[in-house]
Amino acid sequence: MESSIGIVTPQRIHFAEPLALQNGSMLAGYDLMVETYGELNADRSNAVLVCHALNASHHVAGIAADNPKDIGWWDNMVGPGKPLDTNRFFVIGVNNLGSCFGSTGPMSLDPATGTPYGARFPVVTVEDWVNAQARVADAFGIHKFAAVMGGSLGGMQALAWSIMYPERIGHCLVIASTPKLSAQNIAFNEVARSAILSDPDFYGGNYYAHGVVPRRGLRVARMIGHITYLSDEDMATKFGRALRRAEVMADGVKGDGNAQDEGYRFSFDVEFEVESYLRYQGDKFAEYFDANTYLLITRALDYFDPARTVGGDLAKALSHTTAKYLIVSFATDWRFAPARSREIVKALLDMRRSVSYAEIDAPHGHDAFLLTDARYHNLVRAYYERIAQEVGV
Amino acid sequence: MESSIGIVTPQRIHFAEPLALQNGSMLAGYDLMVETYGELNADRSNAVLVCHALNASHHVAGIAADNPKDIGWWDNMVGPGKPLDTNRFFVIGVNNLGSCFGSTGPMSLDPATGTPYGARFPVVTVEDWVNAQARVADAFGIHKFAAVMGGSLGGMQALAWSIMYPERIGHCLVIASTPKLSAQNIAFNEVARSAILSDPDFYGGNYYAHGVVPRRGLRVARMIGHITYLSDEDMATKFGRALRRAEVMADGVKGDGNAQDEGYRFSFDVEFEVESYLRYQGDKFAEYFDANTYLLITRALDYFDPARTVGGDLAKALSHTTAKYLIVSFATDWRFAPARSREIVKALLDMRRSVSYAEIDAPHGHDAFLLTDARYHNLVRAYYERIAQEVGV
Repeated sequence: MESSIGIVTPQRIHFAEPLALQNGSMLAGYDLMVETYGELNADRSNAVLVCHALNASHHVAGIAADNPKDIGWWDNMVGPGKPLDTNRFFVIGVNNLGSCFGSTGPMSLDPATGTPYGARFPVVTVEDWVNAQARVADAFGIHKFAAVMGGSLGGMQALAWSIMYPERIGHCLVIASTPKLSAQNIAFNEVARSAILSDPDFYGGNYYAHGVVPRRGLRVARMIGHITYLSDEDMATKFGRALRRAEVMADGVKGDGNAQDEGYRFSFDVEFEVESYLRYQGDKFAEYFDANTYLLITRALDYFDPARTVGGDLAKALSHTTAKYLIVSFATDWRFAPARSREIVKALLDMRRSVSYAEIDAPHGHDAFLLTDARYHNLVRAYYERIAQEVGV
Repeated sequence: MESSIGIVTPQRIHFAEPLALQNGSMLAGYDLMVETYGELNADRSNAVLVCHALNASHHVAGIAADNPKDIGWWDNMVGPGKPLDTNRFFVIGVNNLGSCFGSTGPMSLDPATGTPYGARFPVVTVEDWVNAQARVADAFGIHKFAAVMGGSLGGMQALAWSIMYPERIGHCLVIASTPKLSAQNIAFNEVARSAILSDPDFYGGNYYAHGVVPRRGLRVARMIGHITYLSDEDMATKFGRALRRAEVMADGVKGDGNAQDEGYRFSFDVEFEVESYLRYQGDKFAEYFDANTYLLITRALDYFDPARTVGGDLAKALSHTTAKYLIVSFATDWRFAPARSREIVKALLDMRRSVSYAEIDAPHGHDAFLLTDARYHNLVRAYYERIAQEVGV
């Protein structure tokens, strides 16, 4: 494993002041895990906040100091000489409230009881995360981010930043995202949550006390998610109808598809490559991800709808923004299709905001925002070049 | 509830001769539930076989004698004066082997042990069903069907009929179907099966002996299925992001969406209308459908691939067919998209077969094949008019 950024170590920041949440409650003192790359310049004008999606964390780039196999989730985007160049920008990754990678969340001890929050952890929203991230900026003495950037759910946070803190964000980069979930998007989340909520090992969210994890539910949830991250075409190319053979299953080596077609086995065990892939992804996920966090983050996705309080008029919701925008979508992304990004672009144009929009013709569905694609990366690189000139770095 | 066909009563037909299955085993004597509509004419030339999809049965049309609320699943298509007119045609519905509506399946007693087959019931295929259906034709003294017709998985059976028994089928009507599942199709089936297989109440398929049903798994499986049956647009129209209100939930009446928007409730209970719909569909399904049957039928879907044994060449697989074809697809069906139907049409044209093809611009996704749509029904009606003239009824 390599990373041009080298070994990185996160820091834990404690926030003693309670945070007012959108659900009306107050969260008492809390911690956030933060990782930074590059150097903050003297006038603190070169800071970029990178927001994460469902299962990622503060570990955006570089090699984790405590695990050389753990490369940051956007390492191809962030680093020296990368599209978001850490030789020029100071980049911050924050693990969001409610997540399970060190920031305060359902697994954390509730100071009021001395036991894990579990189901008592409040249902947080994109707006709550943005408020918490603003305090991280304060902690670094950063008044205004040169840019806030994110893909998918991370893009929602960037968009919310431009609405909630217009004076604190220069550029807003919203990639593979949407102004709100569709009924179908919510439906997929609901099925995933149902799988978790109905797992007998869930115990109403307080499984920590029972020493178990709702592994079966998490596994099914992740399998559903994975189908929506890939395009139909991409799945066809990667797996097609290739059968997975018993002898190659035994040692875990990937089968060679139909090369030695021995026919169907007439069972419900893994038969096709695509089944093997999904089960593997599901099992892996259930090993490291917290089920309560999965519920919370999918609900934050469902709830995000900045136009909701202004009669559904997205342009109106954006009326106080001052940032400039880069909106990027991917042609084969059926989770958050290009049409959803164009809704944002249209609303911004209606408000005469500065907006650049690109639809990348990549075959990899929603996952494309995490993958290396020259057109996509060159576009982001050129956009940061423009920001660098503006802030003089 | 009304049906122009009136009250109908199914019959159980016992087949004493063992059936050779595709998995290499023999199924000992078995029963099939059958329902018929209309009258078989003197030369037995007016018979039409209607094949069912995943969760349907032999009860195609009419009002079930034992339950006046139970209208046949294709009652809008089959009956006196309907597109498939039972004043002219003798229509047969067969509950497939392995299903859970009276035909021999996992819930049936295995004569060898005196206990339910459960997990021991063989994994049957579309081809096995067709062979079993051919024996039903024999039982009625029908040498050749005027037509075999089906939607979705039912369409696969019609297509297999034309390949396996070319001399016994005049017309083949394949609606909202596909020549084989895509990797994405298999992936959705696999997630549904994983939900069932990992339900602690599944007991390796032998839950009957434990007096339980893997309800949680079945529920999640059905929820996933429902997302794939509806189009994104249809879900948006039906549900959008409308919230479901507590007071209307209590008495089960459908909420009026955002009319009285009291804001989010910040919980994982039902919040949006679409969640309520999915949970209802899932709960209802888990009440009446057998989990082993769900596994079997989704596997039959996965396995169907008539071109598999001839190097993937569908035209070659169709080279011995003699039927004439009507292929129908629906524009917003993303489960089995029009492109999949066009693969069948292209292979038939390559073989210079007689084929009519229509793509119906209906908004209802895969479910459209079950719904009343004038263009769709008029098309099928006109096609049966042609068949009626050919067979002289």
